[in-house]
Amino acid sequence: MSAEVPRIGVWFAGARGSVSTTAIVGALAITHKLVERTGLVSERPELAGVALPDFGDLVFGGHDVDPTPLPRRAELLADAGVVPGALVRKLVGELGEVDHRVRQVTGLPAGRQIEYARRVEHDIEEFREREACDRVVVVNLSSTEPPLAASPAHADPDALELALRGPTPVLSVSSLYAYAAFRAGCSFVDFTPGAGARLPALAELARRQRLPWAGSDGKTGETLVKSVLAPMFAVRNLRVRSWAGTNLLGGGDGATLADEQATASKAASKARVLGEVLGYEVDAPLHIDNVPDLGDWKTAWDHVSFEGFLGTRMAMQFTWSGCDSALAAPLVLDLARLLAHAHGAGRSGPQAALAFFFKDPVDSAEHRLAQQFESLVEWAHGLGDRS
Amino acid sequence: MSAEVPRIGVWFAGARGSVSTTAIVGALAITHKLVERTGLVSERPELAGVALPDFGDLVFGGHDVDPTPLPRRAELLADAGVVPGALVRKLVGELGEVDHRVRQVTGLPAGRQIEYARRVEHDIEEFREREACDRVVVVNLSSTEPPLAASPAHADPDALELALRGPTPVLSVSSLYAYAAFRAGCSFVDFTPGAGARLPALAELARRQRLPWAGSDGKTGETLVKSVLAPMFAVRNLRVRSWAGTNLLGGGDGATLADEQATASKAASKARVLGEVLGYEVDAPLHIDNVPDLGDWKTAWDHVSFEGFLGTRMAMQFTWSGCDSALAAPLVLDLARLLAHAHGAGRSGPQAALAFFFKDPVDSAEHRLAQQFESLVEWAHGLGDRS
Amino acid sequence: MSAEVPRIGVWFAGARGSVSTTAIVGALAITHKLVERTGLVSERPELAGVALPDFGDLVFGGHDVDPTPLPRRAELLADAGVVPGALVRKLVGELGEVDHRVRQVTGLPAGRQIEYARRVEHDIEEFREREACDRVVVVNLSSTEPPLAASPAHADPDALELALRGPTPVLSVSSLYAYAAFRAGCSFVDFTPGAGARLPALAELARRQRLPWAGSDGKTGETLVKSVLAPMFAVRNLRVRSWAGTNLLGGGDGATLADEQATASKAASKARVLGEVLGYEVDAPLHIDNVPDLGDWKTAWDHVSFEGFLGTRMAMQFTWSGCDSALAAPLVLDLARLLAHAHGAGRSGPQAALAFFFKDPVDSAEHRLAQQFESLVEWAHGLGDRS
Amino acid sequence: MSAEVPRIGVWFAGARGSVSTTAIVGALAITHKLVERTGLVSERPELAGVALPDFGDLVFGGHDVDPTPLPRRAELLADAGVVPGALVRKLVGELGEVDHRVRQVTGLPAGRQIEYARRVEHDIEEFREREACDRVVVVNLSSTEPPLAASPAHADPDALELALRGPTPVLSVSSLYAYAAFRAGCSFVDFTPGAGARLPALAELARRQRLPWAGSDGKTGETLVKSVLAPMFAVRNLRVRSWAGTNLLGGGDGATLADEQATASKAASKARVLGEVLGYEVDAPLHIDNVPDLGDWKTAWDHVSFEGFLGTRMAMQFTWSGCDSALAAPLVLDLARLLAHAHGAGRSGPQAALAFFFKDPVDSAEHRLAQQFESLVEWAHGLGDRS
Repeated sequence: MSAEVPRIGVWFAGARGSVSTTAIVGALAITHKLVERTGLVSERPELAGVALPDFGDLVFGGHDVDPTPLPRRAELLADAGVVPGALVRKLVGELGEVDHRVRQVTGLPAGRQIEYARRVEHDIEEFREREACDRVVVVNLSSTEPPLAASPAHADPDALELALRGPTPVLSVSSLYAYAAFRAGCSFVDFTPGAGARLPALAELARRQRLPWAGSDGKTGETLVKSVLAPMFAVRNLRVRSWAGTNLLGGGDGATLADEQATASKAASKARVLGEVLGYEVDAPLHIDNVPDLGDWKTAWDHVSFEGFLGTRMAMQFTWSGCDSALAAPLVLDLARLLAHAHGAGRSGPQAALAFFFKDPVDSAEHRLAQQFESLVEWAHGLGDRS
Repeated sequence: MSAEVPRIGVWFAGARGSVSTTAIVGALAITHKLVERTGLVSERPELAGVALPDFGDLVFGGHDVDPTPLPRRAELLADAGVVPGALVRKLVGELGEVDHRVRQVTGLPAGRQIEYARRVEHDIEEFREREACDRVVVVNLSSTEPPLAASPAHADPDALELALRGPTPVLSVSSLYAYAAFRAGCSFVDFTPGAGARLPALAELARRQRLPWAGSDGKTGETLVKSVLAPMFAVRNLRVRSWAGTNLLGGGDGATLADEQATASKAASKARVLGEVLGYEVDAPLHIDNVPDLGDWKTAWDHVSFEGFLGTRMAMQFTWSGCDSALAAPLVLDLARLLAHAHGAGRSGPQAALAFFFKDPVDSAEHRLAQQFESLVEWAHGLGDRS
Repeated sequence: MSAEVPRIGVWFAGARGSVSTTAIVGALAITHKLVERTGLVSERPELAGVALPDFGDLVFGGHDVDPTPLPRRAELLADAGVVPGALVRKLVGELGEVDHRVRQVTGLPAGRQIEYARRVEHDIEEFREREACDRVVVVNLSSTEPPLAASPAHADPDALELALRGPTPVLSVSSLYAYAAFRAGCSFVDFTPGAGARLPALAELARRQRLPWAGSDGKTGETLVKSVLAPMFAVRNLRVRSWAGTNLLGGGDGATLADEQATASKAASKARVLGEVLGYEVDAPLHIDNVPDLGDWKTAWDHVSFEGFLGTRMAMQFTWSGCDSALAAPLVLDLARLLAHAHGAGRSGPQAALAFFFKDPVDSAEHRLAQQFESLVEWAHGLGDRS
Repeated sequence: MSAEVPRIGVWFAGARGSVSTTAIVGALAITHKLVERTGLVSERPELAGVALPDFGDLVFGGHDVDPTPLPRRAELLADAGVVPGALVRKLVGELGEVDHRVRQVTGLPAGRQIEYARRVEHDIEEFREREACDRVVVVNLSSTEPPLAASPAHADPDALELALRGPTPVLSVSSLYAYAAFRAGCSFVDFTPGAGARLPALAELARRQRLPWAGSDGKTGETLVKSVLAPMFAVRNLRVRSWAGTNLLGGGDGATLADEQATASKAASKARVLGEVLGYEVDAPLHIDNVPDLGDWKTAWDHVSFEGFLGTRMAMQFTWSGCDSALAAPLVLDLARLLAHAHGAGRSGPQAALAFFFKDPVDSAEHRLAQQFESLVEWAHGLGDRS
């Protein structure tokens, strides 16, 4: 690392949502030493020494369709028990400053893809210059979107450029952000289950631009637990017969996922874990229910039926009652720090070693959490430790 | 490995108990290709090639205080749903043959330690000769025993020899079996939470005799789950605030554990996992209740309260409904095969790489299941693969 | 009651299914004093003295599309742990005799409603005469069916008679059995969620024929628990905010319910309880998943979010692991005994006092189990006690 | 009822504890129409018309060993999520006024029983006069106490008077409050599991003074659920085989209950429900664990093993995550209102119809919640409705 401390921009698509608001409150609180660093993987002893940017060197900005300013969003999260009210009261001024760097956008208008993409690119570049950032990480936290229809334009960057000029929509919002991020020379994290950068044309664009990226679909709750329990059944040679799951959640995510299409995208992403860890197909019905009264608090129930020695049938159940934003926010900060460092260290393309953070990891069939953590630690130290 | 296939004796202390009966039924059924090898860790693809003895090369014998013959014990287990009735009906003749190699013993009589130990040693040696075994693994499956009072005789083999001749009891039953096993030149597995070979005098005796041993307290249910969930909380930097557990079990084990002292021994063995994996002390009340109507079926409930980013409080619960004998029996067979192979390969002393199988692993502070499995695989291949 | 003991025919639509097979095995076993009367509500002390037919006075017959004979069906249930194998072995001869009174039918052929209905009616009448039954109770245990399209012919018996002669289907199978039962002078129980007798035309037919009937959708598991928990929240003035439920089940029922339409019918029937007990609408997503590996064993998970004093938010969860056939079979026998007695006592029309047995009780908005039981007891004694 | 609205004093033993603080906050909030009346049984439609005192006619006072003033106690409860912070901020002034009517006491000093009892009596009387109360209800909310040693002085009021003058302790604190309450002409509620008024001498004293009383041990969580589930198993004739329970709780109560003796008293009180509802003895191990990190939030897990038709084994589990103070506080207000009304209506002695509120109801073997509620409603209307 250079003697100069780099200044890192973090640009959120969905900057006023629960996850990004919690992440921003947390980064400010840590900078002021108001809280512990609980939940941050990048603060684990195993990663000590890796030359990650400090929290005080992160500058936040972004887009959102919601005009509610960040201080108000933070108060609402405090009322819902997601972040401590006392913390929000102390940080209200600084949250207001961050909010000045958030620009309101409309949804993607029909037939105006290229303008939208250029607007995103322009806003990111302006942010980088104005804030004098050495590097910017673009993090997609926008709502879960329906699966994207296939298009020949997805195969090649040049074909994509042409298609974007046409009236037919070829990229979903998550992919438009990836496209704009890469054009602007930024690394990219897709924390949602959408397509994001996972189209050959975009992957090629990242490669040409020599930019690293990571995704997709942050692993925060039920799937996190699956990624340790499924390997447990595997190494004990116990045969999983069925694994049924139900997720109850409210908040914006709950509402979005109630939309059947969107659920299909999420459920598919969750389903990979079992087959790839166990090595055989398991009957695994999975439901996501919108229960508005639960807000940001997600409750999942899983029922695992398995078979042991001589065919004896047994069962395990678990319930997970977690606050999704509080689980996701530190991972977003981890990813921003790690990817900024990887960018500085000259890595480009999909970073398979970040599979640890995702339900549907790009370029990796490793879903076992312990093995993912080992890869992460080795990769991170390989980027360069503090001198 | 020699061209000759070695014949391996497996001598059970507690040969007519549920675990050993299930293990014997299973080994016979596998030899006759009547069942799948589900639940056997030694049959995992990761261990393929390791020159373990075949199931057909295992000869079973042992001691028990219970006169009920094995075929009858197997029928009772079938009635309780632990093993399939059809399997027992097919194997009843062979179970009767095995039963001829089981000798009934009384409990340890006061003031007759040395006679008891010599009797055990003699029976094991006679079994080895009569059955023409190349090697014998002694497996302790006797009931959970109260913690042992400390004695100076535990420190040194010679002091122990002397003390055993006196009237004051210095070794519990599990340790007497370890002592007799080592004197008879056999490797030893302690599958119960008792002291077993874990006294300096016995460890030294094993070393002198150049014998490998393993223990203690088979990890079959709640602790197995803990050994993957605790590392999950750790790598995600989530702070566990309390971890309360309740185990309901019937059967002989339930009755024994109802005895408060015995429970203390079991609970202590279970408690190591959390502190050593998490690196801090956690409030972790743990109960073991004897619920006779549950028989061999154990139900455990764990409630984990944890803290995430910015101190947000969350919780996870799980219930585990497992058949203890069906979970333990294949591990006993795994350990017999692995330890026999280690003995043949010239290993001696406590085998830390077998920590994977135990709640309270000897010579190892590694309780994370994934890491334990890696060590196991490396160690096993190090013993020698099939040529 | 007359001095003569009446002989009661029980005619099952679905006579070789799991529920009816279990009911028949149970009635025979009780007659031979081979088992306790556990699970039979009609054997509660509160109903002692009510002049119900004895189990030995019940004669079973019925229809099924499945040709597998009852002794074989019973063996399969024994293998699945639903009924004890030893019991089946003792009763195999008598089960074979009952099977001679079961006639195989095809599914309802298109455009042949009237022939089908007449065939059913004829078979029931022939059974009654051949077996010299004083009265026959027809019990519908056929598969859950999709909701029925409305038709003007449902309003009036005479219009219905005409419509049945036409090519357009106007009655589902459950309703065709109700129609045939009433024409044959038999009382009728609908144990499934289908329309059954709940059409004005059929209700009027029952009234004309002076026949009692009961329904619908046997309350065996999750809804049973709801019918005591919802009143608990109500009398404590705790406000239920959401009540989410998931049902995992295999067996024939699981497969049928996987069909989305059929699920709609089942879910609607389950949903009545909450609104009617609590007096306000509650967000209550409900899933029924087909998990073949669970067979007859149903596992339900319910998550109740509620609000207490000063708006404090709390939660309750339960899981129910029950064997559906073992829960349903005794209720079917209870209903047959009670309805036969009501028929003998001259009752006609829907019997609201049998609401205790049903998820979707006809003519009753009372879903609270304790109050339903009080009504049942009062009604039963009102029919006439033994002299 | 007289045209004059009576003014009712409510005197708490333990006035600054979580339950009483929550009750006082709630009564003030209701008086000012700041909150809904959720959780108050006395506000159920079934009790509409009963001439209960309004919340604005209740005056609070009491004793506590803790000097922390009520406004501070309320803030602490708000931080713990038990009461809304905004509510506390609005009521801080009035809470301060109530706190002036709370007098700090020391624990019961050895050998000074009679002085202690007279001091309590004097403070209650002074409160009644100063506040011009028509009647006072004394509510015991002090900590769970160990079971009381039997004494001949418990049999007779006159013997008790003598014994209290001696140096040997004969009454626990809960009983001393009952004694003082009755001497002062006040009705008495024992909300804790201690002896309270349940000694022949005290019951006789209440009769002589013509005072009503109620107890004991408020039914707030796990036992509340048991009191509806056990009757469910009973009316369905399902045989409960075992019912194991674990309660995790923190707060002051958790710490007290960690004391083994005190737990014995609580566990005995909980155990009555099953035997009396089911009519047979059930193996029912019950644990209460002190888990400080849970604070006022109690989590209970119950595992019920039961047997259905033909002996089929099934199981049900539930977890209850409740805030104990939020569950108890409205019941305390209900009891104060109901008992004040009963006192005005001339009732004396133990009020069995209040069994609905208690784990260990005095003078009643009815533990079924539905039946208890019916008795309560009938009894309350019998006291006199508003004209």
